[in-house]
Order: sequence, then structure tokens, then C-alpha cells
Amino acid sequence: MARDIRQLIDQMTLEEKAGLCSGLDFWHLKGIERLGIPSIMVTDGPHGLRKQAEGADHLGIYDSVKATCFPSAAGVASSWNRDLIEKMGAALGEECQAEDVAVLLGPGANMKRSPLCGRNFEYFSEDPYLSSEMAAHHIQGVQSQGVGTSLKHFAANNQEHRRMSVDAIVDERTLREIYLASFENAVKKSQPWTVMCSYNKINGEYTAENKKLLSDILRDEWGFAGFVVSDWGAVNERVDGLKAGLELEMPSSKGQGDRKIVEAVKNGTLSEDTLNRAVERVLNIIFKAVDHKKQDAGYDKEAHHQLAREVARESMVLLKNEDGILPLKKEGSIAVIGQFAEKPRYQGGGSSHINPTKLENILEEIRTSAPGANVTYAQGYELKSDDIDEQLIAEAKEAAAQADVAVLFVGLPDRYESEGYDREHLNIPANHQALIEAVSEVQPNLVVVLSNGAPVVMPWLGRVKGLLEAYLGGQALGGAIADLLFGDVNPSGKLAETFPQDVRHNPSHLNFPGEGDRVEYREGIFIGYRYYDMKNIEPLFPFGFGLSYTTFEYSNLQVSKKEIQDTETVEVSVKVKNTGKMAGKEIVQLYVRDVKSEVIRPEKELKGFEKVDLQPGEEKTVTMVLDKRAFAYYNVDLKDWHVETGQFEVMIGRSSKDIVLQDTVNVKSSVRIKKRVHRNTTFGDLMAEPLLAPIVKEMLAKANEGSPFASIDEDSDAAGMFEAMMKYMPLRAMSSFNPDQFTEHMLNEFIEQLNKVLEG
Amino acid sequence: MARDIRQLIDQMTLEEKAGLCSGLDFWHLKGIERLGIPSIMVTDGPHGLRKQAEGADHLGIYDSVKATCFPSAAGVASSWNRDLIEKMGAALGEECQAEDVAVLLGPGANMKRSPLCGRNFEYFSEDPYLSSEMAAHHIQGVQSQGVGTSLKHFAANNQEHRRMSVDAIVDERTLREIYLASFENAVKKSQPWTVMCSYNKINGEYTAENKKLLSDILRDEWGFAGFVVSDWGAVNERVDGLKAGLELEMPSSKGQGDRKIVEAVKNGTLSEDTLNRAVERVLNIIFKAVDHKKQDAGYDKEAHHQLAREVARESMVLLKNEDGILPLKKEGSIAVIGQFAEKPRYQGGGSSHINPTKLENILEEIRTSAPGANVTYAQGYELKSDDIDEQLIAEAKEAAAQADVAVLFVGLPDRYESEGYDREHLNIPANHQALIEAVSEVQPNLVVVLSNGAPVVMPWLGRVKGLLEAYLGGQALGGAIADLLFGDVNPSGKLAETFPQDVRHNPSHLNFPGEGDRVEYREGIFIGYRYYDMKNIEPLFPFGFGLSYTTFEYSNLQVSKKEIQDTETVEVSVKVKNTGKMAGKEIVQLYVRDVKSEVIRPEKELKGFEKVDLQPGEEKTVTMVLDKRAFAYYNVDLKDWHVETGQFEVMIGRSSKDIVLQDTVNVKSSVRIKKRVHRNTTFGDLMAEPLLAPIVKEMLAKANEGSPFASIDEDSDAAGMFEAMMKYMPLRAMSSFNPDQFTEHMLNEFIEQLNKVLEG
Repeated sequence: MARDIRQLIDQMTLEEKAGLCSGLDFWHLKGIERLGIPSIMVTDGPHGLRKQAEGADHLGIYDSVKATCFPSAAGVASSWNRDLIEKMGAALGEECQAEDVAVLLGPGANMKRSPLCGRNFEYFSEDPYLSSEMAAHHIQGVQSQGVGTSLKHFAANNQEHRRMSVDAIVDERTLREIYLASFENAVKKSQPWTVMCSYNKINGEYTAENKKLLSDILRDEWGFAGFVVSDWGAVNERVDGLKAGLELEMPSSKGQGDRKIVEAVKNGTLSEDTLNRAVERVLNIIFKAVDHKKQDAGYDKEAHHQLAREVARESMVLLKNEDGILPLKKEGSIAVIGQFAEKPRYQGGGSSHINPTKLENILEEIRTSAPGANVTYAQGYELKSDDIDEQLIAEAKEAAAQADVAVLFVGLPDRYESEGYDREHLNIPANHQALIEAVSEVQPNLVVVLSNGAPVVMPWLGRVKGLLEAYLGGQALGGAIADLLFGDVNPSGKLAETFPQDVRHNPSHLNFPGEGDRVEYREGIFIGYRYYDMKNIEPLFPFGFGLSYTTFEYSNLQVSKKEIQDTETVEVSVKVKNTGKMAGKEIVQLYVRDVKSEVIRPEKELKGFEKVDLQPGEEKTVTMVLDKRAFAYYNVDLKDWHVETGQFEVMIGRSSKDIVLQDTVNVKSSVRIKKRVHRNTTFGDLMAEPLLAPIVKEMLAKANEGSPFASIDEDSDAAGMFEAMMKYMPLRAMSSFNPDQFTEHMLNEFIEQLNKVLEG
Repeated sequence: MARDIRQLIDQMTLEEKAGLCSGLDFWHLKGIERLGIPSIMVTDGPHGLRKQAEGADHLGIYDSVKATCFPSAAGVASSWNRDLIEKMGAALGEECQAEDVAVLLGPGANMKRSPLCGRNFEYFSEDPYLSSEMAAHHIQGVQSQGVGTSLKHFAANNQEHRRMSVDAIVDERTLREIYLASFENAVKKSQPWTVMCSYNKINGEYTAENKKLLSDILRDEWGFAGFVVSDWGAVNERVDGLKAGLELEMPSSKGQGDRKIVEAVKNGTLSEDTLNRAVERVLNIIFKAVDHKKQDAGYDKEAHHQLAREVARESMVLLKNEDGILPLKKEGSIAVIGQFAEKPRYQGGGSSHINPTKLENILEEIRTSAPGANVTYAQGYELKSDDIDEQLIAEAKEAAAQADVAVLFVGLPDRYESEGYDREHLNIPANHQALIEAVSEVQPNLVVVLSNGAPVVMPWLGRVKGLLEAYLGGQALGGAIADLLFGDVNPSGKLAETFPQDVRHNPSHLNFPGEGDRVEYREGIFIGYRYYDMKNIEPLFPFGFGLSYTTFEYSNLQVSKKEIQDTETVEVSVKVKNTGKMAGKEIVQLYVRDVKSEVIRPEKELKGFEKVDLQPGEEKTVTMVLDKRAFAYYNVDLKDWHVETGQFEVMIGRSSKDIVLQDTVNVKSSVRIKKRVHRNTTFGDLMAEPLLAPIVKEMLAKANEGSPFASIDEDSDAAGMFEAMMKYMPLRAMSSFNPDQFTEHMLNEFIEQLNKVLEG
């Protein structure tokens, strides 16, 4: 519906305008009845609705209305399936419509800087491209239903430790290439209705008050058109926030923030135009919600549950399958061990906690899937405690010994990971580990199924033949696990994050979670596989890794052009064939490397991927497109993305560590970086510039007559040293080492001459 | 002789004063004949004199007067022998007196940030304490002879790549604890006559113009009393340098620098007082040299050669000795293989290159040491090339096959490492490696002797039984190697640096040698073993490691006090016993760890060491003293060293990875760090402060009446999250989450109240 929002704003009092910039209560925006502006509701997400009863706040957190609990983001990202997450998003949008929720808070696109971050289960990946693609399609799905999203937590909120006061010190290039890039594409591609700023500071400034972040980058550069909302309680100084581009304070500050705004307008420290602009942005979204509201909306609970199962299947990653122990036969005896089988861990703690419409029991689902098998059960451990219960262990050993195969359900109990705090180590509980060790003594046919939101270390890995990383699988995890264990569905997930052998190997380790309220991202752009690659540290499981019950062969890598301008795109295609006996999906990964660069760059970066579904014997051609950004780094001097002219490697991988095909493409930059000669420009740099080299050579020949540098014997032992000395010598040293021939005055004139040549 | 230097200065013209601030030529300072000020000479070092013929400059670098070439610093540091380096220094001083050299340029105390740095052979260690101790005793030795030193290259000159223009970006704490600390103790303990500034910039400013470095820290904090000289050609803007505290420009700028100084005084941009002060500092040293000049000094070449052999023996490190292959028997047949045996690599390239008084031939020394053995020789490779010569390899195999044992001499040829450029990898030449591999096929009794100035990687290590790291052993290396191989002397060196398995494991790897003219020390304080420890990356050989032909047992670790103030010292003593059959020396290493710290600290830091000489069966007690600095970190807010009150571990190690005994000591800080409460102080921090906790508790109880936080069920799944939420919540969030009970006004009053309590 067309409305004149500016005219509406003209009718408001100053107090009404200020009022629209903060919540009515914990979950509602304010309305203005006399002007026909309704109060809309927002609700926690992102992998389900956490809609609380009227008037409820953050507390009573686990007592929300029932909703479908989909797998959390760590798992969903492992699907690398854009369509699937979009379908999931659409289902979430339907549930929002049914519950009269205008905006679902999420998805979270923060990078996984450390596996210790307590909230990693809510985030997608350690790779900004993958994360941003997942976020974009989540947003598209939800918003396809006329419901808004809130892309969060913007930005550099990569730990829970001191999250409301910590200052993330991140250099500009790292911010752009990693921490902001994960948001950038999602904003550009999918226009979330809202973006949620994070609690932390970046480089000294609260994100809630960071104009560069909220306005210059988010709006002006990326074209964000919605409003920015504070994370709940993230507002520091309300007026500073409004100026920076934070339109909506949540939750209600009971008029405190509003009063500060009114006061600031009155005393002239805040322009009313700024306030009007904020109100306009909020109103745009309020009316968007109004216009898209579906009356009497409902949703099919069972269909959503089945979708949750479909998502869960693709969210799980088969990490080990020795002797082809999986898939299990649906006969003989199977010992199911571990309390998770009956009381599954299927979601994480905190604001994303969903009250599910139903919850599958893994043990029951296994029994349902394999009615012909004798499925026994032993509890193995007490979920509430880490203490090793010898009695439970003995029972588990007994059950395992008597079965053909044992499937152990272990991982991280709720208390191990949650919003609010970080882990301090990557171990599973002592009683889970003891269980694996004990059972492995009596049963070699051992499969472990892990439930956890982020990597764990596995000193016990050598004791098990099969390993399924089930992540936090949502309410339908039981059926999904059974489907995968028995091969009713072929596993097709691949890790969206590196599993390290040791938490100390993580790139952030020396600087996580920081000192007091300061955390320095000293590893820079080397997050995740970018670091393990470059440091040659063998991970436990690399980024992009995952097994299947079938096999895939890659062939015929084609690059559409061997030479492009950075303004053009290039198509990369590859054939993938299912060479095994079971239908399956393969995730084809495309990495790019700048062969030679003036700046420090990773050995490879993910720049494309496709998930392809193949019947046995079937072959398909997968095509991906690379544009400028696939080759560029963020140049802090240009304040722009920049491609260095030269050769790039284009790599097709089964994982980040398993590159199967590669080719090269030459990219030519459309930007010439201006150089200037100064007194400390080195001779090496001058000689590397074709325009200058002949002039410099001539000058040197003249100036060096009779100088120390005139008579170097090229065969002498010291020749290498003198060559290097000249290369690294600044211009000004000529007048220091050879002042008779080259005075300071000549130096200045020479510099002027060279700069004139450069200016052309 | 007492002189009135100020009165002397009063008699000078402005031009004369300015003239004293730069060299006469490449190696001499200016004198003023009419005032009786002589021109003194300085000469390259540091492990010998490189005195060039009159009028010579940097070229003809390898054509200096003959002098004793001692092992270079990388080796000397491996001796961990303070007395020995002092003896070496005294010998160097004697040679200077004999050659009329007033100041010997060196030692170099730069840290080994990366093993790739081409000049590492001239530096001592990756540990600032060890480096500074070695530098201090080198200085004491030289200066004991009335000859000055020039502690160099001050500071953060840790690469040769673009050394004259590169800007080292190093945070203050890292500078203080690592890169400056290596100079600090040497300056304080041994007062070098001069300090040489480096070529590079630190944090944007040339060290040659860095007042903070050259004046505030070096003079005001550390009490340096000599003059600062530029590295040759390091002056950028002469006047800026003089203002910053760079007294002497070298080499001569043929009056250019002087003219700039005169002009600046005349136009008022440089105060004449500043110039006078500089001249006074230069004159102090000139006259010190004059007063200490020994007439008709000479030295005993043979005695110095024998000292060089003694130093070399302790500079070499036995790294592997499988099946006790060493010491070799002086009988049977020994195949000596590798051209280094005849043309030894015994020093590095560049300004430290010495023209030795004589040079031992390793092969001959082996024959001399073992007249009863049949010593054969095969060349194995061509030193001039990396190409594998199959003929030479075949001859080597033949010789090895026919012998009882083969000793291979391999390592880095001259062209691999030098002043002026860095290495790009850590491999030995392909023909050296091929030789090891080929010989290992026919001769299992294989000993490798390495000649190199810095670590190499050793993919071939599994093929050899014995490995002696001979470093660059100076002119008497041949005898020293023979002494050690046959056990005439027991090896007693230990590594002063980590040997990595892979260059990529080095802490600087992601940021070495930087981008263009910028290198960021992002690894911070985690240099060398501090990094390998913390990251749990297994080195090839750890810092402090070295084998002996005897065995040592440690017992009875004693800490003199269990509780100290940081103003006190504590004695740590330990008994060491030679439990083997050969006399030998052991290097006892003392490391300290802060058990719990607010700041990020290494797992251990070397804070003491002693080398102890023990006959078989003999036991001695080694005592080391720890003072405040042993427990302190550099607190950038206090701008001072600071000890956190608490427990410290005191560890005795055979190496950094082999801690044999440990105890604890409690240290109490004498400084109380002032805290202030602000709106973003977290509740966790408030509750941790005993003075504030009760007040905050009371406030919370009152404010939370009826608030979301009043009624958290401690047994709920979410209890952990809410506890963490409260802990990390800033004060201001109270007025955001609970504005009815806690207004902004109350917040400000409460903060004021708390700060009053803190101020006491």
C-alpha cells in the first residue's frame, strides 16, 4: 500500500518520533494509534521461533510457544545447500505469519574465529563466502513469506566472554575480507529488513555507536535499506547510537532512551532530520510488515517436521567410515549406547532455544528404521554430570559385547555450550570419553554419533570405525540419524569449519578471549583453513571435508577465458560423476589463489561451491562464476577491493585439503595504483618500474663513477650481498655513501624528475 | 686524564662542532688538531676485526688486515658461557689495541624473530635474557682492554629484506619484553661505549630519528652514557636524528650532514645546546679511547687461535647420538665426506667477514687427532653449485661403504646466508641432501656435521645416527670439531634458538618479511619457544636442547623464600651431578611462569642459567637469583614493569622442553593498580573487587525486585547462561533492562559512590 510516510512523520510530536526509536516492551515496537501505526512483534530465532507469552522478557526463556526446531546454523551450513536453507527459511516465515511475528531475529553471520566461542552453534562457518551465502538464502526464505529478518550480530562479535564490553581490535583489511564480508553479500543479495548490531566494540567504539559500520559501510557502500536494531541491551549512549545509524533500541528502556533523544534535539546536539530519517526507516519496515501480513495464516506442523528431518540429514557429516562399517545392516543386533539416544541434544542454549512442536527419540527412530534388528540400549552416562558411573559403563560394555555393532551417542551436554559464555577446552565430558574407551575394549565395530554445536577434540578417534558428526540436529534429528546410519539417505554434509587436533592450534589461540576488555585479532585474515593451510598444521578434519556412501569422480575442468579484465567474469566448469552404487550428493568446492602478490594472501580461498545430486553412474557439469571479488583483496590505501594483475590458480576440491583439479586464469586490473618516488624509495623498487628503470640506470652509472659501487666483482663471494644492498638501498643513501657525486640538491631534483615521469 | 670538555667545546666554531657529529671517512671520526682532538678509528666486528686499509670503504670488504676469526654469535650463544665470551671479548680488545682501533662495532643483540633472517648468524638468540647476557659479557670483555664496543642494531632490525626502508610495527609490550629487553640488560650491566642505531623504522619512525628510543629509553631509562652512532648510511634527515639523540653519522657524508646541522642552528630550528650535548658525548668517548690507548700493543696470535678453538668447542651442539655412535674411536676406518671438510664454512658474509690469521682444515685436524685411524676423503659435492654431481656422489658412496663410519660435512654455503638478504627456505642445498641420502644407503654409521649460521630443516634426520651442529665455528673450527667427534672434549653447547620442523611453523611466518615496507610483529611476545610451547607445535629441536657424552642428574631444588615482595629477590638453587663417566659441562636453565595472569603471558620464560663443569661423580650446587624482572611483564598503562600478585612456577630444565624440577613462589606486588568504575564496568569485575562486592550486591537485591533477574532458577538449564550474562553485563545495562528501578541518574550516582570507595 502506498503511504506518504514523510507526511505521517510531520504529524508526530517530537516525543512520538523518539518513541518509535525504542521498543514498547521486550518484544514489540511501539505503535501510534492515532496515526494508524501498529505495534509489531519481533521474536528470537534463527532456526525456529522463540515467541514468548505476552509481557514476557528474556527470562522464562525456555517457555515459548511451540514451534518447529530446525537444526542450528552450524549444521545447516554443513549442508552447503542454498535451496534447502531457503526452504527452511520459508517454513520459518510461515510460522511467523501464523504467530503474528513480523520479524524473526536472525540469521547470525558471525565468523567462527575460535571453536571455543559458546555461540558458534548459531553461526555458519569460518569462511565468509560460505557463511554469507547461507545467510543470504536463509534471509530470502524467511522474507519470501512477507516476514522480516535481522541479520546479526553486526559485527566482530566472535566470543561470548565479556561480550558486552569487549573491544575487538581488528585491522581494516581483516574486517573487510573476513568479518564484514560474511555480512556483506547477504545484505547486498537479500536485503534483510533489519540488521542487528552487536554488543561489543570494534577498534574502540561500540558497534551500536559506530557510524562507519552502521552508516558508511552498511548503508552507503552496501545499500542496506532497512533499519538497524540494537542487540537487546547493546545501547550505550542512545543519542550517539542514533547519530551513528542505530534506529531502534531494544528492549524498551521505559522511556529513558526516548527522553535522551528529545533532550538532544531540544538542546541542538541532535538534528531533528537525523531523528526523522530514523523514524522513516522504522516506519518503512513496520508498514512492510503490515502490508505483507497474512490473515489467518497457519502452517502444517507435520510438513515442517519432515522438512526439519530433511535439513537434518544434510546437516550431518560423515567423518570416518573404516572398513565400510556404515551404513549399518538392518539386521543382527545393534547396541545403542549413551543417554543422548533417549534425551537428545538437538539445539543450543540461550535466545535461540526453541520449544519444539515435537521431539524425536533417537533410539525409537533407530528401532523404527530397522524393525528386523535387535536393538538394545544402555545409558552409559548421566547427562547431568561429568562423573564416570562405573555401573553404567559396565552395562554399556555388556550390551556392546553382546551386539554385532555398537553405536555410541556422545557429545556436548547443554551446559557445555550456550549463548553467554565460551568453552575453555574442546573435550567431551570425561564420562563420555570413558564410555568410548570402555566399549572399544569389547566391541571393535564401533560407531560414534556426536551431538555438539562446535568442534571437539578426539583423542579416542583411533578406537572407533565410524564417526557421524550430527551437530545440533533439531527436533527431527532422530529420524535423520537413523536415515543416515542405515543408508536410507546418503550422507552429504561437509564441514563448514576446521576441526583442530588441539585447541592450541587454532589461529586465535594466543589472543582468545583477550586481555580484560581487549581482544586483538592478530591472526588477521588467517582464520580457519586459511591458517592451517599457511602454517602447515594438520587439522583433525579439514574445512570442506565429509564422506559419502558413494564415490565421485571429477574431470574436465574448464575455465571459460584464460585472460580477463577484473571487470569481467569467468566461468569455471567441471564434470562430476557418481562412480559408486548409491545415489548421493556431492559438494563441489572452488578455491582461488593469487599466485604472486605484493600483499600477504591465503594459499586458497573459497569462492564458489555447488551441491549436485547424482544417481549411480550419472554425470553432471557444474558451472560456477568468478567475478572481481573472487580475485580481489581489500586494499586499505585505495579503500577498495583490488585485483593485482597476474596469474590466479583456480582449484576444484573435494575439501580444502583435497584439491583434485586445477587451472589458471590471468586477470588484469582495471585500476592503476599511483606510485610516487620519495627519498626513501629503494633502488629495487625504482628498477622494477619500467618507466623509471632506464633513467635510474643512467643516473647510477654517472654517479657511481669512482664510487664504492662502481667496481663490484660479480663473481666475488660478496656479490650477492652487494646486489641485495643496492636493491634495498633508498635513494637518499646515494647522497650519504657518495656525496661527492650526488648531493642532497641533486637528490631532490632527481626525485622530482622521476615523479614527473610517473605522472606521465 | 681530566679534561674540561665543555671548555673545549666553547673554543670550537659552529662548523667544527657539527663536524664532530659525522665521520671523517668510512672508518674514522673527525679530529680537531688545533684543539688536540685526535681522529679515532672504528672497525667492523663483532667476532673479529675487519680493519680495512686506510681510505678503504665497504667495498673490498674481504680484504682487511688479518685478525683472529672467532665463532660467530649464533655459535657463541650456544655456549651459554658468560666467562668464555668475556675472554673472547678481551682477546678482541687486545687485537683492537694492537691495530689502533678505538671501537669494535658489535655485538649484535637483535632477536631471532625468523630463522630466515640472513644475519641471524651474527645474533645470539631468540630469547632476550640469554641474548642480553651474552651481549653484556662480550662488551665487558672488549671494554676490559680499553676498547669500546657498539651494541647494535638498535632496534627491531630482524630482517635484511628491505632493511633500509622497512617499518617494523611492534606493540609496546612486545618491544619492551622482547626486542628492547635484549639490549636493555647489556646497556645497564656493561655500558657499551657506543650504541649503533639500525636502518629500519619502528612504528613509523626511523630508529635514527626516534627520540623515544634513542633518548627516552636508552639514556633516561637505562642510563646509557656513551654516544649513538648510525649504522652506515642509516641517517635519513640529519637534524632530526641529532635532535632525537643520534650523535654520530657514519660514514662521512662529506660535509652534507654537517652543513644541515649548521644551517639548522643558524635558522633556529636546532638549539645549539643540543649540538653541544652531542659533541660532548662524542668527545667523552674519543678521550676515553685516548686515555685507554696502549702503546705498542700486540697480541699472541697462537694463543688467540687456541682461544678460538676453545670457544668453538663450546659453541657446537650435539643434537643426535643414536646408539652412542659418538664419540668416534680413533681407530678403524673413517670416511670424511663433503667439501666443507677441506673448504670449511666458518663465518658469515657481510660486514662481519674476517680475514683470519690462519684457517684450520677439518680433514687435516681429524687426521691429526686420530693418527691411528684410516681416514679417507671424498668431496661429495661442488660448493659453488647446488647441482647434484653423480660422479662425486658415487665416489662418496664408495668411500663410505668401505669405512666403519662416515662423517658428512654439509650445511649452508656462503651464498645461502649473508648480511644483506634473507633466506627464502630452510633447506640445505639439494646436492648436500642427496649426498646424505646416498651415503645412508650404504653406511648406517653416519654422522652429519652441519656448518650453518641458522637453523635448517632436516627431512633426512632419520637417516643419520649422529648430528653435530657446528654453526659457523671460526678459524679454529677444524680442531674443535675433531675434539668433539673423538671425545677429547665433551660437547656442552645447547641451542640458543628453536629448530623448527617446518619454516611455516615459525611464529613470524604469516608476517615475514612483511608487505612492501611494512612488517607487522603480530606474533607479539610469542617469539621462539614462547610460541612453540603455547601452540603445542613440536619443534625439530627445542630451545635449550643439547646432548653430552656424560649424564647429569638434578636434585634438591630449593627456593630460598616461598613468599616475597616484588622488591625483594629470591634464590633458586639446585644440585647437579655428573652421573656418567666423562667430565662435562651442563647448562642449567631456570624458567619462570606466572600461574594465573590478567594478561597473556608465555608458558615459560628463561630467567636464569648457569654452566657448570663437573668431573665424573662430582656434584655441585648451582644458585641463581630471581628479581622483580623475572616475574614482571611490561604494563603499557603503567608504563612500567609490573608483577601481578600471585603464584609463580619456578622450573629447572635441561632444555625448554625438558623440565626436571619445579617449585613455586608467591610474589606480592608493591604497586596497586588504580581502578575506576565507569558505566561499562561489568558486574563480574565489580564483584571481584572485595571493597565493592557488598555494595553492589545490596544494590542488585534492591534494583532487581520484580526484575527479570530476581527469579532465576539455579537448577534450570539456562542458569549457566544467566550467571554468565550477569557477570559480563555492564553497569549501564541495569538501566536498560530494568529502567523502572534503576534510572540513568541512579546509575551515575552509583558509579560516583563506588569510585569514592575505591579512592578510600
